[in-house]
Amino acid sequence: MNQEAIFHMSHGAYAYALGPHHAVIKLRAKRGDLKSVNMVHEDRFELPGSYATQELNYAGSDELYDYFTAVVETQTKRIRYRFLLDSGAEQMWFGERAISNVADFAGWFQLAYLPTRDLFVIPEWAKSAVVYQIFPDRFQNGNPANDPEGIRPWGELPRADTFFGGDLQGILDKLPYLENLGVNLIYLTPIFLSPSTHKYDTADYYQIDPVFGDLETFKRLVENAHVRGIRVMLDAVFNHCGAEFPPFQDVLEKGEESEYADWFHIHSFPVDREEVNYETFANHVSSMPKLRTENLKVRDYLLDVAEYWVKEVGIDGWRLDVANEVDHAFWREFRDRVRAANPETLIIGEVWNDSSPWLQGDQFDGVMNYLFRDAAIEFFAKRTISADRFDAMLTKTRMMYKRQANLAMFNLLGSHDTARFLTICHEREERMRLAVVFQMTYVGIPEVYYGDEVGMVGETDPDCRRTMIWEEERQNRELFRLHQQLISIRKAHPALQTGLYRAVNKDALHNLYGFVRETQDESIYILLNNGSGNHWVTLPEGVSGQDLLTGRIYSGTFDLEQYGFRILLLSGGTV
Amino acid sequence: MNQEAIFHMSHGAYAYALGPHHAVIKLRAKRGDLKSVNMVHEDRFELPGSYATQELNYAGSDELYDYFTAVVETQTKRIRYRFLLDSGAEQMWFGERAISNVADFAGWFQLAYLPTRDLFVIPEWAKSAVVYQIFPDRFQNGNPANDPEGIRPWGELPRADTFFGGDLQGILDKLPYLENLGVNLIYLTPIFLSPSTHKYDTADYYQIDPVFGDLETFKRLVENAHVRGIRVMLDAVFNHCGAEFPPFQDVLEKGEESEYADWFHIHSFPVDREEVNYETFANHVSSMPKLRTENLKVRDYLLDVAEYWVKEVGIDGWRLDVANEVDHAFWREFRDRVRAANPETLIIGEVWNDSSPWLQGDQFDGVMNYLFRDAAIEFFAKRTISADRFDAMLTKTRMMYKRQANLAMFNLLGSHDTARFLTICHEREERMRLAVVFQMTYVGIPEVYYGDEVGMVGETDPDCRRTMIWEEERQNRELFRLHQQLISIRKAHPALQTGLYRAVNKDALHNLYGFVRETQDESIYILLNNGSGNHWVTLPEGVSGQDLLTGRIYSGTFDLEQYGFRILLLSGGTV
Repeated sequence: MNQEAIFHMSHGAYAYALGPHHAVIKLRAKRGDLKSVNMVHEDRFELPGSYATQELNYAGSDELYDYFTAVVETQTKRIRYRFLLDSGAEQMWFGERAISNVADFAGWFQLAYLPTRDLFVIPEWAKSAVVYQIFPDRFQNGNPANDPEGIRPWGELPRADTFFGGDLQGILDKLPYLENLGVNLIYLTPIFLSPSTHKYDTADYYQIDPVFGDLETFKRLVENAHVRGIRVMLDAVFNHCGAEFPPFQDVLEKGEESEYADWFHIHSFPVDREEVNYETFANHVSSMPKLRTENLKVRDYLLDVAEYWVKEVGIDGWRLDVANEVDHAFWREFRDRVRAANPETLIIGEVWNDSSPWLQGDQFDGVMNYLFRDAAIEFFAKRTISADRFDAMLTKTRMMYKRQANLAMFNLLGSHDTARFLTICHEREERMRLAVVFQMTYVGIPEVYYGDEVGMVGETDPDCRRTMIWEEERQNRELFRLHQQLISIRKAHPALQTGLYRAVNKDALHNLYGFVRETQDESIYILLNNGSGNHWVTLPEGVSGQDLLTGRIYSGTFDLEQYGFRILLLSGGTV
Repeated sequence: MNQEAIFHMSHGAYAYALGPHHAVIKLRAKRGDLKSVNMVHEDRFELPGSYATQELNYAGSDELYDYFTAVVETQTKRIRYRFLLDSGAEQMWFGERAISNVADFAGWFQLAYLPTRDLFVIPEWAKSAVVYQIFPDRFQNGNPANDPEGIRPWGELPRADTFFGGDLQGILDKLPYLENLGVNLIYLTPIFLSPSTHKYDTADYYQIDPVFGDLETFKRLVENAHVRGIRVMLDAVFNHCGAEFPPFQDVLEKGEESEYADWFHIHSFPVDREEVNYETFANHVSSMPKLRTENLKVRDYLLDVAEYWVKEVGIDGWRLDVANEVDHAFWREFRDRVRAANPETLIIGEVWNDSSPWLQGDQFDGVMNYLFRDAAIEFFAKRTISADRFDAMLTKTRMMYKRQANLAMFNLLGSHDTARFLTICHEREERMRLAVVFQMTYVGIPEVYYGDEVGMVGETDPDCRRTMIWEEERQNRELFRLHQQLISIRKAHPALQTGLYRAVNKDALHNLYGFVRETQDESIYILLNNGSGNHWVTLPEGVSGQDLLTGRIYSGTFDLEQYGFRILLLSGGTV
């Protein structure tokens, strides 16, 4: 047994409450090392009848490790536990104290109590959400009266500072399109007053930028979206403001005497926009001074903003810009405030890496899942990794987080900050199709970046922010219909939303990737042939599967063509 | 290289802020596997000049792993980093993405930003604290007028419900004794109104139990202690109350109609004290109903209590009873409230196991360090483990936590909930002496349980709660003087308070344990011979050490007798 590779901790994503009386326990070991993992558990006050033995299930593998998990029930909400590891050659006990062949020497891990208030709860509606990201200036110009001066013709290639006239009325006008596509959540990049086209440099957190519309238009948009079953999410740019934000202007003007001097991280006075003697977003971006969210006055100001838009307009969620550079204390209070305003508010952070510190249940529900995108690019778009490696990357990310967070991840193929997926595919649409099938059937919330569904292309910012293509003859209608079908299937099948995930085929030689999503009621088998030729697939005796895309029924052995995919609702058993 | 044994995470005790511009980075590997660990780090926005290489230092080993740490400086408060691991046979890069021989494939770990508000700050005074735990009924009867009826004669063996008449006036009277001993912090087990002798079943959180005195007496005690440089800490019993707590009485009386019905975890109405149809502390302890701290009314009530005693009387800290069964959200708010009332308030939780979830900087400063006690019992009292194993147990616990928490641990040899250490030593005082020398020179706050310093004995509760021995002829004066000397030495030497810890001798054969505590200014070498015979010790050429206990100077090779110890202030170099 490779003892040094055994890992468990009695907190974080390795031991956590799933409900008031249920906890998930996870353990990892060197890949292939353990034949089975069992645990014994009991109430630490040794309540009669609380002692039980339970096997952990194999939950997947990444490149180095196998993962095992169990859901444990506890009436008293108190669990102490230790593991019995079996490598075939030997059995060892593993507790907080040690790995030992003597149970008592191993000691106990403690999950001392499962407090209801610490429970990680994501909004129920988020489990069946499919989100569509809109960059408002580039989506649709619904009201030429509010166009800024000097807008460029729709369709021209954008530069960083180009305005095209897209606005809230345009989004409102296109709600039927979105409803037809099937998405039930739209996320708008910033819409508050700001001099830029992207509006990540806020001048007034309480004002809709007039080039996008006004409060009434926005309210109308939200109301009309809600009527169509579409929720609306805004972008909270709280790490930094714009240089035109009045408190920063006050500091520029009055220096140390300004009552807002401690709202920013000023290195020296007077503040100098040329020298950039203050902290900013990224690398000396003078137009984006970093806010001192740790200052309780700033905190209160921003939390009021967050609450205002939830209460005043009824938005359904906040996406948090540069979320990982703002203090955890702020985000905890943020969650408390917006959840008090509406307990169903969804909170998604922008964090590009391991996001564990924000996903314990006290801060965000999920993050923009760029680690998902990394894996999708390598497997589907660039085809540089095998099915086995792809599965390993996904498993590694999924195992970082609690189940609740995994269900609330924004699984994106691209965003306003990246090249478009089809472009990374060298515009080989068959690759993108496979990726979309995967995205729509994987664990977490599929996020469609506006235009991806009709085959838009673009290199990274600003090229990925081209104006939306509306002429149907210029749209890839086949790709649109695939999105439409997949979204419809996802929304119809709870297994695709909340079902457990189990990799079945991860053939490194032929790059056939197959996995099952399953609940107690249904089992769906997704097959993706990302290899360079046809591949045979065999269903077990007595098991058949109806393809949810074509209606065709499969059983026995059948052929899957290159770049082919099947979404099979199984009957007669599982695979 | 044993890749599966390599562990790092970019949060928790493996990557955290030590100050606004400094972070600690920690990595563990299989014991003996790596020759060196280096890291490269830079600002993630690739600020010119931010790229640097730094070696991690070997920080110790537990049974399975070696630990390496570095303190990294960052002007921009943003770090991304990856490690270069060298096993001698091969070099590998290790980042968030993978372990690889190609740096870019390894990816980067991210410590996205070091927000000041999230900084883990312990009170400055805590770093030089030595704490003395008092069980008030058993310490000293200073005012017979407030004795409860039926008290038993001082010196009689206690049962669970015996009263002896100890009180606050008694503690006040004995402040000169405590000052003479040298402790600078006293921790009192509960003193609020309650029917029991231990008072862990609170009836009124705002009233000093009259058998202990009144508010005026307590204020006098705190004032007089402060005059002598002794701080005072109380016991916050917030997990549960006593059955006589008026809200619980109200629920007993009015059932579901009570406005306090949701202050508790009631399984069914009417509430039945025989059947115990409600959650309690431990196993159906009907006199201790569990409080629903998750109810914001209960939370506010208890936080008001916590703030009241800090503001009204000026207590210096709270010890939190059954801290691990109360929600994290409550403890975060607790920290905010008491730290706002007095930023120097010390917060110590009662958690007997891995306490990481409470020691991230947002909840407690430290915990009652029972894991320290476990190691001390096995090595010093029972002599069942080797010096190497002892060091491994200590290292494992120390590596669980951030430095700040390690400095604030209450390192105890015993408490009101355990057998006394001398009793576990089978009253072999020489064993206890070694343990006390270790306790007073180790990382964290030494905690003396009343009477241990004069050789009191006792099996576990209630026997460990005997009345204090005051007659000098019945006290072990030698043991008292050793405590006095060691406390004085600890308080005089910053290296013993905040110095780094480095094991030097962990001889498994002879059980000689030697370690160094060092700051930039001083280096102290502590030697403990826990073997079964004499043992030679050799100082390096040119290095000498003055024993802080005897004044004697050692150099070259010298003999350390069985159970002997030395506390050597080194000069001419280090060991």
